[in-house]
Amino acid sequence: MKVLQIGLGPIGMAISRLLMRKPGWEIVAAVDTDVVKQGRDLGDIIGLDSPVGIDICSEIPPLGSSDVDIAFLTTVSTFTEVLPTLHTLARAGIHVIASTEELFYPHHRYPQQTQELDTIAKQHGVSILGTGINPGFVMDTLALLLTGVCQDIARIAVTRVVNAAGRRPSLQKQIGVGMSPESFAQAVEQQRVGLVGPTDSLAFLADVLKWEMDGFKERLVPVLSHTPLQAAHGQVESGQVCGVRHLIKGMSNGKEVISFDLRVYLGAEQTRDTIYIEGTPTLESTLKSPDLEDVAATGLLVNMGPLVHQARPGLLTMIDLPLPHYQR
Amino acid sequence: MKVLQIGLGPIGMAISRLLMRKPGWEIVAAVDTDVVKQGRDLGDIIGLDSPVGIDICSEIPPLGSSDVDIAFLTTVSTFTEVLPTLHTLARAGIHVIASTEELFYPHHRYPQQTQELDTIAKQHGVSILGTGINPGFVMDTLALLLTGVCQDIARIAVTRVVNAAGRRPSLQKQIGVGMSPESFAQAVEQQRVGLVGPTDSLAFLADVLKWEMDGFKERLVPVLSHTPLQAAHGQVESGQVCGVRHLIKGMSNGKEVISFDLRVYLGAEQTRDTIYIEGTPTLESTLKSPDLEDVAATGLLVNMGPLVHQARPGLLTMIDLPLPHYQR
Repeated sequence: MKVLQIGLGPIGMAISRLLMRKPGWEIVAAVDTDVVKQGRDLGDIIGLDSPVGIDICSEIPPLGSSDVDIAFLTTVSTFTEVLPTLHTLARAGIHVIASTEELFYPHHRYPQQTQELDTIAKQHGVSILGTGINPGFVMDTLALLLTGVCQDIARIAVTRVVNAAGRRPSLQKQIGVGMSPESFAQAVEQQRVGLVGPTDSLAFLADVLKWEMDGFKERLVPVLSHTPLQAAHGQVESGQVCGVRHLIKGMSNGKEVISFDLRVYLGAEQTRDTIYIEGTPTLESTLKSPDLEDVAATGLLVNMGPLVHQARPGLLTMIDLPLPHYQR
Repeated sequence: MKVLQIGLGPIGMAISRLLMRKPGWEIVAAVDTDVVKQGRDLGDIIGLDSPVGIDICSEIPPLGSSDVDIAFLTTVSTFTEVLPTLHTLARAGIHVIASTEELFYPHHRYPQQTQELDTIAKQHGVSILGTGINPGFVMDTLALLLTGVCQDIARIAVTRVVNAAGRRPSLQKQIGVGMSPESFAQAVEQQRVGLVGPTDSLAFLADVLKWEMDGFKERLVPVLSHTPLQAAHGQVESGQVCGVRHLIKGMSNGKEVISFDLRVYLGAEQTRDTIYIEGTPTLESTLKSPDLEDVAATGLLVNMGPLVHQARPGLLTMIDLPLPHYQR
């Protein structure tokens, strides 16, 4: 599999490191907007002992489907920001897997642009997938698989607890780390805090399960620190915000059928995901891992590579593809 | 979806009951080898208040792909026993989902007949899937999905605990309920006790993960009752066998890479499945349910219906199909 790597942030670098040691994969070009990285050797950037002979480009080089089997796009979270790049890649006949949170299920947020992208992908015989751990796996794909054994479903409740300590500064900022409760409340109003993706996961679940939704209720509650805590950008004092509790409820016919309780804060216990499905049968699944964030996202993106490469053209979701699994 | 139901044991009856109340499904014919059921109305057999106008046939009626969208085959556990029926259905152009344990992954046990069946299915444009909860879901499909986030895997360990109380008499017999420890040991030697499927689940995992296996080690240990217990066929005395612990280890390059610990006995605590994946990242998943056996198997078989109906022709496995999920 010949790879074009676009974006050399934490996930992009982790993907490159993984592909470098994985048989059957070859990175043919790498792109980043950071001028400090441009022109340097990829091996240097990702911390290898020796250069690999690939200089970081500032723009996507003129490659086609014969040069590249798949592009990993790991830049920003916003659908509209990656859209021009996706159009460029589709026109070049290059399949794409992106970590862009809003590309996981943009159908509700950007219906018209989603349809246009799907059409362009189909015209050029290209498959595009947005995925990751959340959105992409723990609150949606795994939950859907578990519904596969149900004769009926009354409701689904997912709780995700993530320790934000040691995570990227950008994530810590996103969850309000270091804010006062007052400035957090203001930031909520101005939509400057909160997590990208959970409402899309919820919309995806509802659509796949064919639940006609009355609407979603969303609530962001600050988690306050009880003791001084170390954050990426200095110390969080007692009483300041150390993270967020993001609550979303999806209603159908006046009944709460999907609820998400996402708690991301400094000092949370080990990351765990609990999926409760009330139905026939009722199920409860708990997933624990010391690293169910970037390490797992890197694994998932790479493992989806061969599946997306062989898939039908179009803008795909996780239920359009065969069961995800580890690829040796 | 027009359905041909073959076999009206507990699973076949549960499927029929589910389809009768599920929009978009219609049973067009039902078959059973039991002369007591033949000629009677399906509604009567499955406990409905009124007849449904379908008489139970003794043999598969002369139907084709225009009459039937899918057949549910819920008869016996053995691949060779269902093979003639599968050939008949394939030649008639009818897709099949079977609960036959050995059809989940017959590739190792019956390589030649598996290939022949695949060829015949492809010739007639028919898709065939064997699935269920175990084998089919908890020790294989779910484990594979979880590997989807791994960059590396060192080993997989699955523990399944099932309370056999209240289960089918045939299952209780299979796990040695009521035997003395001596007759259990003899039955193990004569391969008269033990569970159908776990070695196939293990072979499936190994093949999908491309682990070259040195071989499998299998061990059957009786679980002895400490107090008198009620079984399907009378009482189990203290000191008698109340179930089995089925241990399987799969070795690759001299290392244990897959281990299954399957404990099925009367009086076990709530059914639970634990999947431990040692890798990057390491994961532990626990699934609990008051009924992760026949109720869930019925749900899974029916939910796979539309996926198998739209799938490519051939003898399929769970990774050849899109992600299983509930179908409203």
